[in-house]
Amino acid sequence: MREGFHEELNRLSAQLRRMCTLAADAIRRASRSLRTADLDLAEQVIAADAEIDWARADCESHAQALLALQAPKAHDLRTILAAIYCAERLERMGDLAAHVADIARFAHPHHAVPAHLEYSFAAMADAAAGMADRLAELIERQCPCGFADLADIDQAIDTMHAHVLTVITSDHWPHGVQTAINLALLARFYERFGDHAVAVANRLGFAATGELPFHTHT
Amino acid sequence: MREGFHEELNRLSAQLRRMCTLAADAIRRASRSLRTADLDLAEQVIAADAEIDWARADCESHAQALLALQAPKAHDLRTILAAIYCAERLERMGDLAAHVADIARFAHPHHAVPAHLEYSFAAMADAAAGMADRLAELIERQCPCGFADLADIDQAIDTMHAHVLTVITSDHWPHGVQTAINLALLARFYERFGDHAVAVANRLGFAATGELPFHTHT
Repeated sequence: MREGFHEELNRLSAQLRRMCTLAADAIRRASRSLRTADLDLAEQVIAADAEIDWARADCESHAQALLALQAPKAHDLRTILAAIYCAERLERMGDLAAHVADIARFAHPHHAVPAHLEYSFAAMADAAAGMADRLAELIERQCPCGFADLADIDQAIDTMHAHVLTVITSDHWPHGVQTAINLALLARFYERFGDHAVAVANRLGFAATGELPFHTHT
Repeated sequence: MREGFHEELNRLSAQLRRMCTLAADAIRRASRSLRTADLDLAEQVIAADAEIDWARADCESHAQALLALQAPKAHDLRTILAAIYCAERLERMGDLAAHVADIARFAHPHHAVPAHLEYSFAAMADAAAGMADRLAELIERQCPCGFADLADIDQAIDTMHAHVLTVITSDHWPHGVQTAINLALLARFYERFGDHAVAVANRLGFAATGELPFHTHT
């Protein structure tokens, strides 16, 4: 039974890894739809969010079945609870990608992001997608101590978020209130995406080590 | 042992109820600090958020100990997993109350909300606090079928959120970009607070009935 149980844990880990890949893909495509004002792509991202929602439901049902049937303890228990927690966060990351695509769709046929802020948003988008890629890679390598660099990437997103807020609230902002609100929300979506990725990393670290994650208000 | 176990489940339920009360108190006080531009009160709300964070950590540790020691099944397992899930959501509701207070603090000595939108924000604040009150009451009465009315209140918050966005993006908006951004974020914080309350209600319903909550993108 124990061998079968560890196969089940590996399958749970593969489900989580797949969710990271789906979240990375979603934020990358949502960001491209934003950059290119591509309505079709934005709508594809919004429709594809259901796939991440189902992946979360599968992951949670599987974890719950393992809890009920195997009565796991210590490290195994932490691993299964972490999967439930992380699946929820990864689903939220998918939602945030869909929110980014929503704004691209809303702004269409115009670009939601003015040219002089394109660089900042492309950088936030790359950082956010890179965090989800990194989570997938670390889960695959079963290497929970490698998560510290995610906090650095998250800090970079926070800095760009602050920069965007400074620009759009300056006295010389030329693009009006609607654009400013869209940009404030977009920057917040990327920031929250990064926060969730850090929360996933913290929780996987906790599952591996048993040390409660430092509370970071994510 | 089973009698002791059910006492433990009651204690877990009391911990969740206390978190609902803390969240209701936090959003109510944050909203008052916003309405009265009260810097001291805003700072108290922000500082008090740590109490909700600790309550979440206590609730989760307790739930995890019960999983490890009691190997619960079926209804009991669902109840304990629901406590972990709901504690996380209630902590987020506390964070959102602190975010509301942050904006009150940021705007001080000015009011963040212009007079002609005070009613909308007071209504969102009352609805949000009422949802947290209602969760506490329903947990106390162990009455998971009474949660449906929360979806109605949430719908009312969504309507006011949409109204605020319409007003601040109209061509005649007189208060500038910074105020508009603050209001867009504030409205979003109340909306998210309501979404989390509905998610808590759904999850408690699931714990009671075993039917997976309908996915509502919260």
